[in-house]
Amino acid sequence: VKREDRLVEKIRALVSKPSQLLIGPGDDAAVVARAAGPLAATTDMLVEGVDFLPDEEPERIGRRAAAVNLSDLAAMGAEPEFFLLSIAFPSARGEEVPLGVARGAVARSADYGAVLAGGDLSAAPLLVVSIAFWGKPAGEPLTRSGAAPGELVYLSGHPGEAAAGLRLAERASAFRARDAADRRFPELLPGDERRLLSAFRDPEPRVALGAMLAREHLATAAIDVSDGLGVDAARLARSSGVRLSIEKDRLPVSSALVAFAAAEDLDPVELALGGGDDYELLFTVREADAPRLAERAEALDVPVHAIGRVSAGRGVILIDGGTERDIESLGHDHFEITR
Amino acid sequence: VKREDRLVEKIRALVSKPSQLLIGPGDDAAVVARAAGPLAATTDMLVEGVDFLPDEEPERIGRRAAAVNLSDLAAMGAEPEFFLLSIAFPSARGEEVPLGVARGAVARSADYGAVLAGGDLSAAPLLVVSIAFWGKPAGEPLTRSGAAPGELVYLSGHPGEAAAGLRLAERASAFRARDAADRRFPELLPGDERRLLSAFRDPEPRVALGAMLAREHLATAAIDVSDGLGVDAARLARSSGVRLSIEKDRLPVSSALVAFAAAEDLDPVELALGGGDDYELLFTVREADAPRLAERAEALDVPVHAIGRVSAGRGVILIDGGTERDIESLGHDHFEITR
Repeated sequence: VKREDRLVEKIRALVSKPSQLLIGPGDDAAVVARAAGPLAATTDMLVEGVDFLPDEEPERIGRRAAAVNLSDLAAMGAEPEFFLLSIAFPSARGEEVPLGVARGAVARSADYGAVLAGGDLSAAPLLVVSIAFWGKPAGEPLTRSGAAPGELVYLSGHPGEAAAGLRLAERASAFRARDAADRRFPELLPGDERRLLSAFRDPEPRVALGAMLAREHLATAAIDVSDGLGVDAARLARSSGVRLSIEKDRLPVSSALVAFAAAEDLDPVELALGGGDDYELLFTVREADAPRLAERAEALDVPVHAIGRVSAGRGVILIDGGTERDIESLGHDHFEITR
Repeated sequence: VKREDRLVEKIRALVSKPSQLLIGPGDDAAVVARAAGPLAATTDMLVEGVDFLPDEEPERIGRRAAAVNLSDLAAMGAEPEFFLLSIAFPSARGEEVPLGVARGAVARSADYGAVLAGGDLSAAPLLVVSIAFWGKPAGEPLTRSGAAPGELVYLSGHPGEAAAGLRLAERASAFRARDAADRRFPELLPGDERRLLSAFRDPEPRVALGAMLAREHLATAAIDVSDGLGVDAARLARSSGVRLSIEKDRLPVSSALVAFAAAEDLDPVELALGGGDDYELLFTVREADAPRLAERAEALDVPVHAIGRVSAGRGVILIDGGTERDIESLGHDHFEITR
């Protein structure tokens, strides 16, 4: 029995097979029973040194790989069902690497009722994790293209925390590399540090919010904020053929982010606008639906904030008192920035 | 507009959107209309320097990435419908790399009626291509686990040609590196050289054969030969809980492979048993169905050969006159061999 096959067996053992999964990991392809109706499908690839730090724990990488895909499904208003997981890794690092990644991805997906259906293992000079995720739209799928002038712009959660968390993780990683005893970040309260680190390391995809928005026909357009609020708002604006105006004073900047930014001599608003890795939902809502949205979001215990308005035109601006500023380029371009 | 978004637009332009594709590339996820019934899904990741040579043309890499997934669907007896394409690449190489990969994958999939639904682009220090493909089983899905004693073992095509083609491609690559004027391989007829190179560079997934085997209930078990005839036969034997005996004299060794092996002082049978990258189907058939199989395969113009038998027991042996030899380890283990 090849080492590869033994590893597939171990990964297969992570999956408790639901009746919907007719053929699971270990054959040439998975076979899944499906009712009629639309299928939402997405894929994301995470690359070592680009999307995660080389010393991150495999289980965390797996959790994040699942989360970024779950976030895409959330942005379509789809309920996740099953996923395929491909892992390429340097075999000298040992099988705990792919097993940890698989454990993390399986556990994070199980939080949302979704199941590993199959995958692929390969050798590579560095760790690469690719997931393809399928689900079922909970209502009419949420696209990026339905926003209309006069509507309100909403954002879930607190943007910029993940960007702060990445900086803290890099700091911790540098401490470890120097073998320092104290890797704590002294200017932050432990609770704030944990909150920021966890926003980066273990983001929470807004699956329940997205499904609710689709089911209740509350969002006219939606996107998940993965590359940065500015860049992703611009994508929604471009797809919808509208302009988004975001009010600086309405941005939900958390006290943890403010504390981090103060200690680092950074502007928390800049982190919120261009930080990326937030995996929050940015969506547009008709003004008449605002009360119903507030009520439904509260029932789900998901923080949402109206941060601006849709108007005719193009682009994304930040309104700060009497001044306006173009923010559509704030965020990552995967081919210009390498972290 | 970010460079990434412009690239997504260019890739989107490669796709002519069928009515079944409700939302295609460019949103957070693809949405596809589906009738009820099972869905077959598979994924494969190709890594530069491991699964393809660094100087291969991007379009060929894309074609092969599609083909290896199509081959997995073929081995399930599924008809391909849609795929998701993730490409990570060094941005300094320019966008012709991901565009070429996408063009190749789209063109190869179109040969089988399948369409690009979405994907992901990422930066990386080397080229990585991951595809997730799904389709509809043409009948009861073909698994690896249904073979029973007394049945015949069949193989499509001519194993070992791709392994010979890889060696020729490596040779050509080395010639190019030395800037030699003549990169031809002098001992081979040009037709044989083309045939072997093409078996490696542009394998033909046996989609029509797989779908026919499922639709006509002709195969009791099936697997695609990607890692090597020995290894993959052992996987089928293990899943089915049987022993496979393959007769050396029945192996369909092509004259092109014989010529290559003679020139290289290699044994063509060893290349056929352990070469890998064949993407042929290995399947088992009840003896009473052999005439019907021959007729249906001929109607599809796909060469199939009975190469052995299923018996009680375990493992895979090669029968050569009066001798028996264990061949279940002949082929790649992705974590022991790096090409």
